Amino acid sequence: MVNAAIVGVGHTKFGRATDKQLQELAWEAIKEALQDAGITQRDVQFVAVGNTGRWSSDPLPAVVISEYSDLCPAGSIRVEAACASGSAAVRAAYQTVASGQADIALAVGVEKMSESTNLQVVEMIGRAGNFFWEFEQFGLTFPGYYAMYATAYLHRYGAKEEDLAAIAVKNHYYADLNPHAHFHKRITIDDVMKSRYVAWPLKLFDCSPQTDGAAAVVIASEKIARKLTDTPVWIRTQAVATGTSNLSKRSNFLSLDSAVKAAEEAYKRAGVERDKAYKYFDVAEVHDCFTIAEILAYEDLGFVERGQGYALAREGETYKGGRIPVNLDGGLKAKGHPIGATGVSMAAELTKQLRQQNPPERQADIKRGWAIAHNIGGTGHYAYITIYTLDKPPTG
Amino acid sequence: MVNAAIVGVGHTKFGRATDKQLQELAWEAIKEALQDAGITQRDVQFVAVGNTGRWSSDPLPAVVISEYSDLCPAGSIRVEAACASGSAAVRAAYQTVASGQADIALAVGVEKMSESTNLQVVEMIGRAGNFFWEFEQFGLTFPGYYAMYATAYLHRYGAKEEDLAAIAVKNHYYADLNPHAHFHKRITIDDVMKSRYVAWPLKLFDCSPQTDGAAAVVIASEKIARKLTDTPVWIRTQAVATGTSNLSKRSNFLSLDSAVKAAEEAYKRAGVERDKAYKYFDVAEVHDCFTIAEILAYEDLGFVERGQGYALAREGETYKGGRIPVNLDGGLKAKGHPIGATGVSMAAELTKQLRQQNPPERQADIKRGWAIAHNIGGTGHYAYITIYTLDKPPTG
Repeated sequence: MVNAAIVGVGHTKFGRATDKQLQELAWEAIKEALQDAGITQRDVQFVAVGNTGRWSSDPLPAVVISEYSDLCPAGSIRVEAACASGSAAVRAAYQTVASGQADIALAVGVEKMSESTNLQVVEMIGRAGNFFWEFEQFGLTFPGYYAMYATAYLHRYGAKEEDLAAIAVKNHYYADLNPHAHFHKRITIDDVMKSRYVAWPLKLFDCSPQTDGAAAVVIASEKIARKLTDTPVWIRTQAVATGTSNLSKRSNFLSLDSAVKAAEEAYKRAGVERDKAYKYFDVAEVHDCFTIAEILAYEDLGFVERGQGYALAREGETYKGGRIPVNLDGGLKAKGHPIGATGVSMAAELTKQLRQQNPPERQADIKRGWAIAHNIGGTGHYAYITIYTLDKPPTG
Repeated sequence: MVNAAIVGVGHTKFGRATDKQLQELAWEAIKEALQDAGITQRDVQFVAVGNTGRWSSDPLPAVVISEYSDLCPAGSIRVEAACASGSAAVRAAYQTVASGQADIALAVGVEKMSESTNLQVVEMIGRAGNFFWEFEQFGLTFPGYYAMYATAYLHRYGAKEEDLAAIAVKNHYYADLNPHAHFHKRITIDDVMKSRYVAWPLKLFDCSPQTDGAAAVVIASEKIARKLTDTPVWIRTQAVATGTSNLSKRSNFLSLDSAVKAAEEAYKRAGVERDKAYKYFDVAEVHDCFTIAEILAYEDLGFVERGQGYALAREGETYKGGRIPVNLDGGLKAKGHPIGATGVSMAAELTKQLRQQNPPERQADIKRGWAIAHNIGGTGHYAYITIYTLDKPPTG
């Protein structure tokens, strides 16, 4: 196995991009990533595109992006793992390098959601569980899925809706400091509490928005990475797991089984003790498509004991300077969640965090040089967990 | 890099499967592959699904298939490379093993096309070039794309429509010997010539059908492969390339640039001399979505000189016993082309060829123990070329 590192990152403004085609949006991020890495299109040997394809008129987005970005004839693939499609793109690029089949690969994530009507989005995302049983027969939609988790969690542990709101307040605070974020508006617990219910107990401000955007990372083999940069950000490992399609087959709604399983595997490979996990990482990106999802992530990743995730949020322990800073870019909740882009955006953000390139107000203290990305597809249907480190993996 | 080999294969009947859901079809192939490998679902650590998703009500087919096949919580991904999606699934499973992240991974390709109307299929496949310019503005459809290649080829080299027909005759002959094939009807040159034009010079019998089907292969690391089987089929290398989205940007219509590029790379890695390529392989699977595509493949893979591919067909040199036997399973043309399944079906077929498990009439003579799969997405938009060998790769 060849060691592989991120050596360049690019990121568009997240928000509405009705004036740009999918390939234009992707190219903005690709161009910046290539410049950041100090390479050109001719150096790229493989391209992995994370894109659900559901919002695109072109059924082959990877090809359209490759032509527009002048990346042909490099090989390419499109990958999909629902809302973890971006991490799946990181995987495809990473594995191409790690298996010795290319020295430089590019992962790009992109989604244009604003072309669809709200109803189309509700339908397409609602189907992203089990179409036949739970969407069509029972009429469940995406906020409804996570609302069941929220309901179970509040009931079991005595958390309050205000605790969910604390996640939104934190993430809007950091988004306001991130020029790439969709929203630049600080909010209060009261703002969240007064917003309208979408699916009880989740209110409008508990939900991530529909966003357009793209992000890209250049991944290089150790040999090349050393030549391109003094601060390669190594991909230590990526562990993945799959949850049941039907939520009715889950044993409980207090954690995402797939995330627990993927974290367990990632920690085993990287030598992380689960019950002290927060001590291993300087910063984390977690999947907060809804506020409850970030609280579940704290627990599923072992940052805190079961049933204590809401307390971590309540006490502000996931702000910069706290036990473990989480989503210092605003998270899906306020940075935005252009589905295919999100996992690549996490990789780009953690690279900049580990390189200490963010403005001080949202730059984590980098002591150990480790970071973790937790990217979920659907309602725990996919879990992609990636560990990034400044120190080189021991093997390879 | 870890050596990886196919240790189990499964294949459904290709044809119409209106009585089965996508996951039922996939499971049929998966079950057979697991049994062939002598393992159970609990041994599978990663699942890669090749499926375009355009024909599925479930937007997360990999998850639905994982639940139905009792493969959760193994990690999974869905990959798309148009009509090469199956080879992309082989890639994702292979790289997961080759990069040391799993000992056993499963690649499954599946597509149910019969749920869609002919018009829907025409639209969805027609878009698989450049939607905006060439589908929407110029009204090109998929047979039209390949018809331009056929027109250029016949004009440049003086080949006849009867030469294209020879491909269909051969592939129907072998499909008739393959119980898994969609069509069991031998045809004559005259049958092809009398069939109606779809896009001149391509007639109905020059075109592959709309097919439902699934195929699966189990890929294992060297350590595990040795325990499971005496005849592991090694994945020697897979090289990939991307063509321009717009056909108007191609330099000529006499070959697929992406296929030439991918073959060049694969041959370089495997030490194959291009102008003697046919001497290296006992058998080949090539992408014959239209008859002209198989002739282009002969030339793009270096089985014969430029402009001589039609002569190879005319002289029957790609039947068993000829210069190089091609598509002894009936090919896309007559075995059928369930898009996401095709590349995995090629892998399954070549594994059985190298193991010498096919009935004598369609079993190639295995002398050197090498085979090659040429899987194209769109009209040369993607090219995935994979070399399979009975002898272990030299490195790893």
